[in-house]
Amino acid sequence: MNSLDSTTVVQIGIIVKDVEKTAGAYAELFGIQRPEVVPIASDAFAHTNYRGGASPAQAKGAFFDLGPVQMELIEPVGAPSTWEEFLRTHGEGIHHIAFKTRDMSEARAFLASKGMETVQHGGWDGGQYAYVDGSKQLGLILELLHFDK
Amino acid sequence: MNSLDSTTVVQIGIIVKDVEKTAGAYAELFGIQRPEVVPIASDAFAHTNYRGGASPAQAKGAFFDLGPVQMELIEPVGAPSTWEEFLRTHGEGIHHIAFKTRDMSEARAFLASKGMETVQHGGWDGGQYAYVDGSKQLGLILELLHFDK
Repeated sequence: MNSLDSTTVVQIGIIVKDVEKTAGAYAELFGIQRPEVVPIASDAFAHTNYRGGASPAQAKGAFFDLGPVQMELIEPVGAPSTWEEFLRTHGEGIHHIAFKTRDMSEARAFLASKGMETVQHGGWDGGQYAYVDGSKQLGLILELLHFDK
Repeated sequence: MNSLDSTTVVQIGIIVKDVEKTAGAYAELFGIQRPEVVPIASDAFAHTNYRGGASPAQAKGAFFDLGPVQMELIEPVGAPSTWEEFLRTHGEGIHHIAFKTRDMSEARAFLASKGMETVQHGGWDGGQYAYVDGSKQLGLILELLHFDK
């Protein structure tokens, strides 16, 4: 692999302190109903790994489909996670942009060859994700998303 | 106006220290040629206004069209500007997400009624922009874009 599979941004992830409150503010902004707040990394599919070790950290999320891009609000619950680390060190703000990948291992290896390490990875019922720290090279964290189907 | 005109994210803006270098890293990531670095807010159309006063601040930019969303890399040049302020207070990172609007004044007034103030506005040969500070309510800065055509 010599580049990412896809250059289409599919998600923007924002870390917030209070997902109910912030999701309410976005719903008002967009003139839509507030989406349901859902648990993230809370089930048997999570397998959350943070900087090389298993982590019990979870999050609460709210998702807005904004045309072709999904906005994900994330409130960290517990630690350690990239979500909790970001809130503690940066405060609220945009945490990541996400791209789809066909082969998670290859994509992670390609990014590692550019000096960008995976800081957290895990899964859900339907796929896997990895957060790759491109702060030095790209000014942000990338999320890779792999969907089983 | 009771909500934004559009809920489609059209641009993600990232503040960087060295736009040539970071644009090169993104080009390598995406397997494409590095886009040209172009001046921002440098011509007679700029009329840059920062927190209520005219500002000579400029920037250097590089643009990547990532599917339906454009990624804008911004290196602040001079001050004062929201770009320079962000780099100084946050370091490199994602500065804004942008939405199109048909009526800039109405959109700014709607956001102001929600406690979100315009921190910078200006124009280019073809349109106008406004950065609105939603950090407290939304966890980010919004950019409103109005295209003349």
